[in-house]
Amino acid sequence: MRIVDLIEKKKHGKILTKEEINFLIDSLMDGTAPDYQIAAWLMAVYFKGLTQEETVNLTAAMINSGDVIDFGDLTDSIVDKHSTGGVGDKVTITLIPLLAAAGIPVAKLSGKGLGHTGGTIDKLESIPGFNTKLTIEDLIKQVKEINVAIASQTQNLTPADGKLYALRDVTATVDSMPLIASSVVSKKIASGAKNIILDVKYGSGAFMKTPEDAAELSKLMVNVGKALNKSITAVITSMEEPLGRAVGNSLEIIESVEFLKGNIKTGDVADLTYSFAAIALMQVGMYNNEAEAKEYLRELVESGKALEKLRKLIAAQGGNPEIINNYDLFELPKYKVECEAKKSGYVHNIDAYKIAYACKILGAGRDRKTDPIDYSVGIYLNKKSGEAVNKGDILYTIYSNDSEKTKIAQKYCDEAFDVNNEKPSHNSMIYKIIRAEEGNDV
Amino acid sequence: MRIVDLIEKKKHGKILTKEEINFLIDSLMDGTAPDYQIAAWLMAVYFKGLTQEETVNLTAAMINSGDVIDFGDLTDSIVDKHSTGGVGDKVTITLIPLLAAAGIPVAKLSGKGLGHTGGTIDKLESIPGFNTKLTIEDLIKQVKEINVAIASQTQNLTPADGKLYALRDVTATVDSMPLIASSVVSKKIASGAKNIILDVKYGSGAFMKTPEDAAELSKLMVNVGKALNKSITAVITSMEEPLGRAVGNSLEIIESVEFLKGNIKTGDVADLTYSFAAIALMQVGMYNNEAEAKEYLRELVESGKALEKLRKLIAAQGGNPEIINNYDLFELPKYKVECEAKKSGYVHNIDAYKIAYACKILGAGRDRKTDPIDYSVGIYLNKKSGEAVNKGDILYTIYSNDSEKTKIAQKYCDEAFDVNNEKPSHNSMIYKIIRAEEGNDV
Repeated sequence: MRIVDLIEKKKHGKILTKEEINFLIDSLMDGTAPDYQIAAWLMAVYFKGLTQEETVNLTAAMINSGDVIDFGDLTDSIVDKHSTGGVGDKVTITLIPLLAAAGIPVAKLSGKGLGHTGGTIDKLESIPGFNTKLTIEDLIKQVKEINVAIASQTQNLTPADGKLYALRDVTATVDSMPLIASSVVSKKIASGAKNIILDVKYGSGAFMKTPEDAAELSKLMVNVGKALNKSITAVITSMEEPLGRAVGNSLEIIESVEFLKGNIKTGDVADLTYSFAAIALMQVGMYNNEAEAKEYLRELVESGKALEKLRKLIAAQGGNPEIINNYDLFELPKYKVECEAKKSGYVHNIDAYKIAYACKILGAGRDRKTDPIDYSVGIYLNKKSGEAVNKGDILYTIYSNDSEKTKIAQKYCDEAFDVNNEKPSHNSMIYKIIRAEEGNDV
Repeated sequence: MRIVDLIEKKKHGKILTKEEINFLIDSLMDGTAPDYQIAAWLMAVYFKGLTQEETVNLTAAMINSGDVIDFGDLTDSIVDKHSTGGVGDKVTITLIPLLAAAGIPVAKLSGKGLGHTGGTIDKLESIPGFNTKLTIEDLIKQVKEINVAIASQTQNLTPADGKLYALRDVTATVDSMPLIASSVVSKKIASGAKNIILDVKYGSGAFMKTPEDAAELSKLMVNVGKALNKSITAVITSMEEPLGRAVGNSLEIIESVEFLKGNIKTGDVADLTYSFAAIALMQVGMYNNEAEAKEYLRELVESGKALEKLRKLIAAQGGNPEIINNYDLFELPKYKVECEAKKSGYVHNIDAYKIAYACKILGAGRDRKTDPIDYSVGIYLNKKSGEAVNKGDILYTIYSNDSEKTKIAQKYCDEAFDVNNEKPSHNSMIYKIIRAEEGNDV
């Protein structure tokens, strides 16, 4: 078997066998397939696609390229949640204590965030002392003790995906549906949970620009999961504007704490958190009625039980749980600049990409895994879509450590807000939910 | 400027500017663009193509990546000829002494052949003592003295094409029209001649499978030449079966000598040689009537003047010109196996690829530039298409140094011959001629 023949085959839109895909991934891993051949193959896949069966085989090959975490007895009950990434997306942080409070064990492995704002791990590391470098043994032990643990992914999981993704990133082959699906699903399956909830974003700030594309990707991922004996539920959600009001690492933790304190009862963060949590409760068979599941979950928040789980999670991982009561214990930024609306009307949209870019300028994100992050900076959206605003109202707030960067960020934020006279219609964040039993109509 | 953005642009079928193409080739040459990015770009080009202007800019960038030979005063009168490669193609060897005898200076640079049978350089090196390693100064000096010289390409011409071609070869991106055009034309232009004749093959044994594709490629090459101030004539010729009767290195030299002796007056080798030579005579303005040009050329062969030029060429480059009179001076093979026709009828076709493959098995070709070649082996086609054959007639002859290999070669040769009862119609070898002044209707 020769790699060049597999490239040629895919170039002509032919279907690769399981053996051929295994050979490709084996050759990638042992170095016999040079990067330039893999890159050419990836571009051929971009143009000609992969069938569902090829995608399953690619996913399996990537899983087999490294370790697979074994949670033993916990495997079937554990829930894992993954988001394809969104600006201001702190729903993992609100969700996992809530699920743990509901009695569902949650063991979450997260990669470090690349991009304009930090990832979940970075956000949690903004809590003084919080340690995400757990071994798998520590992770399992903690889940058994308090039902919840979160760790940065340091194990040798799906190294083939790591190599492929690094190549895709520099060869303009990221935006291929089967490649995205196999990358996401392989990582989740190698992480060991049987029940997986995927938040698949669409919109200007996401890989998938339209809800239809996101639905296609979701069905593919759900079906690939099913073929590999995992229960995946995909929730297709809008990412046209930032999720919640806070964008930035410690700012997002504070917003999450406010939600768990019961101070944020409505809006996108509350909607998504309760929806994902209800899906999880139904997925593991605790409830089969969404409204009842949500009522129970609201009770867990109102009673303080969910917040208590967060406190235990922070304490168990070496963080200072007092930040829950005193936000001044976070690293604080030098400047807090409240920016006013320049005209009256309704907020129609807030461009997620521009807000993210402004945060990047302030120092909230990184380009390389080794770059430092400024946990304290970010943007707070005092007004969100659908809200009325009067000229002179505070539209957003910039938290910054540099006055020059503040000015540039302000320019992007002003551009991000679309304020006009018509009252916008309210759109649901959730476009569609695709469950394992429904996925196979692709 | 970033390479990944240029890949992304081409992936979406957008047109790259001259500056972007120069950046790409500069980055390839200075090593800042890794091979995997170039490979992904090549695959995007395979799918999305290049415009004629992009192809011109790519060709110019590749020319500028290395040396360009300067023939000084000779530049405008010199003729160069290139074939896209064919089984049994010895027309360069028959053509250049004939042109030289006609008073047209010919300075030919050839690459070493890769593939099933040797290249022109390999064929000439089958002549004992023949040296093709001339410096440019030696080449020019010899052209000034005897009007003809041929050298292996050792100069640093179009190194960017060398790098690109090596990548294309292993990433299944050879068969892209703009990439083929820029590769061929850049090499020819860097070789210094103003007048270039391209023999563009089509058929089962060639890159271009149909005459229509070959015509499209030809127009593109002629137009790219014109944009870069060179006069290119493309002759589209059939490569459905081997050219001439001899396939193999010294066997092809012998067939060429026979033609120059006037012993081969008809058939494909004679047709193509006279046609190309007449085109050259018209291209440099010596004749404007093809029939008259051909009459003059036939006279040069009949009178022995063309053969005399070959003798001088061989002697000037250190070879033994006595091979012209005594073919036993070539390295001789151990075995000569005459193979008989198994049925009577007409030869309808001889599969060029299978004959070439048989020659490869015998040792006439190479996979790597450093592999040795057996000059003495090959296949002689005693019968060609259109000829009647009786069961028991000698159909072809195998020249070999290994009896096992002979048997395998015989199997392929038997398969190559299509003999049946219907008398085939005669098709012209030349499908179309595209001259610089006609090329621009692409």
